[in-house]
Amino acid sequence: MPLAQAYAAQSATSPLSPFTVERREPGPHDVLIDIHYCGVCHSDVHQSRAEWGPLGGAVFPMVPGHEITGLVERVGEKVSRFKRGDRVGVGSFVDSCRQCAPCLQGEEQYCDRGMVVTGITPTYGGYSTHITVDENYVLRIPDALPLERAAPLMCAGIAAYSPLRHYGVKPGNTLAVVGLGGLGHMVVKFASAMGVEVTVLSNSPAKRDHAHTLGARHFALTSEADTFQKLAGRFDFVFDTVTAPHDHNLYLHLLKLDGTLVLLGAPTPSTPLMAFPLIMRRRKIGGSLDGGIRETQEMLDFCASQGVMADTELIPIQKINEAFERLLKGDVYYRFVADLRALREV
Amino acid sequence: MPLAQAYAAQSATSPLSPFTVERREPGPHDVLIDIHYCGVCHSDVHQSRAEWGPLGGAVFPMVPGHEITGLVERVGEKVSRFKRGDRVGVGSFVDSCRQCAPCLQGEEQYCDRGMVVTGITPTYGGYSTHITVDENYVLRIPDALPLERAAPLMCAGIAAYSPLRHYGVKPGNTLAVVGLGGLGHMVVKFASAMGVEVTVLSNSPAKRDHAHTLGARHFALTSEADTFQKLAGRFDFVFDTVTAPHDHNLYLHLLKLDGTLVLLGAPTPSTPLMAFPLIMRRRKIGGSLDGGIRETQEMLDFCASQGVMADTELIPIQKINEAFERLLKGDVYYRFVADLRALREV
Repeated sequence: MPLAQAYAAQSATSPLSPFTVERREPGPHDVLIDIHYCGVCHSDVHQSRAEWGPLGGAVFPMVPGHEITGLVERVGEKVSRFKRGDRVGVGSFVDSCRQCAPCLQGEEQYCDRGMVVTGITPTYGGYSTHITVDENYVLRIPDALPLERAAPLMCAGIAAYSPLRHYGVKPGNTLAVVGLGGLGHMVVKFASAMGVEVTVLSNSPAKRDHAHTLGARHFALTSEADTFQKLAGRFDFVFDTVTAPHDHNLYLHLLKLDGTLVLLGAPTPSTPLMAFPLIMRRRKIGGSLDGGIRETQEMLDFCASQGVMADTELIPIQKINEAFERLLKGDVYYRFVADLRALREV
Repeated sequence: MPLAQAYAAQSATSPLSPFTVERREPGPHDVLIDIHYCGVCHSDVHQSRAEWGPLGGAVFPMVPGHEITGLVERVGEKVSRFKRGDRVGVGSFVDSCRQCAPCLQGEEQYCDRGMVVTGITPTYGGYSTHITVDENYVLRIPDALPLERAAPLMCAGIAAYSPLRHYGVKPGNTLAVVGLGGLGHMVVKFASAMGVEVTVLSNSPAKRDHAHTLGARHFALTSEADTFQKLAGRFDFVFDTVTAPHDHNLYLHLLKLDGTLVLLGAPTPSTPLMAFPLIMRRRKIGGSLDGGIRETQEMLDFCASQGVMADTELIPIQKINEAFERLLKGDVYYRFVADLRALREV
């Protein structure tokens, strides 16, 4: 069995520390991946601290990480799509039932029996030097995308791209992004690349210049009360990426007739659902979770053709606990990426 | 000026009583309508009691009523679409700005400057013998529809029909209707006529037989806890017509992947908006308000071709206060219709 060096949380209250995991010997359809990079997603922090309760399915020891890129090291005898040395990625799931309606539609992230989430025991995630994954859940990283900057595309990237496609965002539409973090910055990049007029709404004045650099046309401070007056009825779409508690009803009023508020974060506690803003302007509120394998490959190819990549700060995996703390303070532009090669060389 | 006999509320706390209103002399594009019937909508009660606060725009004396049918009595010189004796209807608005994007799209109910609501001073509504309305806001009632049973189509009918079309409900879809009142019973009738598999969800066992008679395939009691287990993930659409406080999140869980909860009632107080049920199954929540003039005519023609009409109980307008009380108790199957001819003959 291939051994991998990893960083794991031994309990919900312990920092991450070195750990060795056994990966399965590649079966006929498996790919053994030499992991180079793994993006550090906000949910890694929640998961490793068991902050999502029963829904989160936290089991320890836990190796987080589901924004994986690396090179194929070895393939099973029946693997046809990959060969040693290929540039590949793995996202937030490594398997699904393959038989339910969502799986058959290529929406494996909504598998009726539950997708097999990357980084939940017994899969162990990407904060490790190797992982064995069925080839059907492995993505091809185009040559135009550096592996480091492609890693966050595997979760933040597809989580931004999929709802832009699903909810029918079109060139010329007006779209507001609430919150400019790992996810929000990818919404700005994708929407701008799609010809959408993007406005960033943030409570941080420091983000103004960043927003424009990322491609946003406009910026407004949510800490200024008249922002919500000025922008009332302005947008076809509001993409809300904030997980901190906030009143989503404020953002509903920014939508035009038939506009859509897309929730990508799940704030706790929730605010009340006000029916009148929905009824009086036929607005909608929707959610979205990642994307399927087919759509993730489409997104990667789009990134290659449009030059869209995540903005990253590379850290050795040994500094992961420090990165968690900085992430919680919003002190990163916009995604930490852990270098796993650093672990192997030790 | 044509005089009309009416029933009006003199204040938010007084019962409705006889009142005389002056209607405007028909201008070149106006139609003077001899009102035969007016449906009694739940919102008439709210409006006449000023229960909607500033949003409701309650001004007294108030003549409620916006589900009007009758015959054309006189037309202005430039009216081309109607002549004396034509069977006509008027719904929840009698004018709009005609210049904003929603008006130009034929969605006058969402007029940016606010549609002119029927039954708000100075329009005075349908609880009266006559009304003068611009021909562009008058509907043609097909001969196949009795005027009495067509009256509730002008609000409850179009409020049910429009979201079925807008949200893309298709033959073979599964749809649950929450609440079987004036609005709910029209959703059941329309959806069934469109080939949709309808389930009625109600807290009243007495509604079971009614639901099936109206065309529903299934019925379930919301007062039984296991209803929500049994029906989890079952529906493409849930149409929620209930205005009494209730937890809409229960109904979100009844939706399939990509299912839509359509809010047609506005409960106060609201329940929290839970993001996880939206995100994990990409569900949506939307609202809808009536329909535009073009779509209302389409709906009336659909009713004529499919034999869809409201189930009504005719009362003389003199019994309107008693009808309000019975309506609040849910003691009507399914819509009171006030007979205005009874008023004129007195």
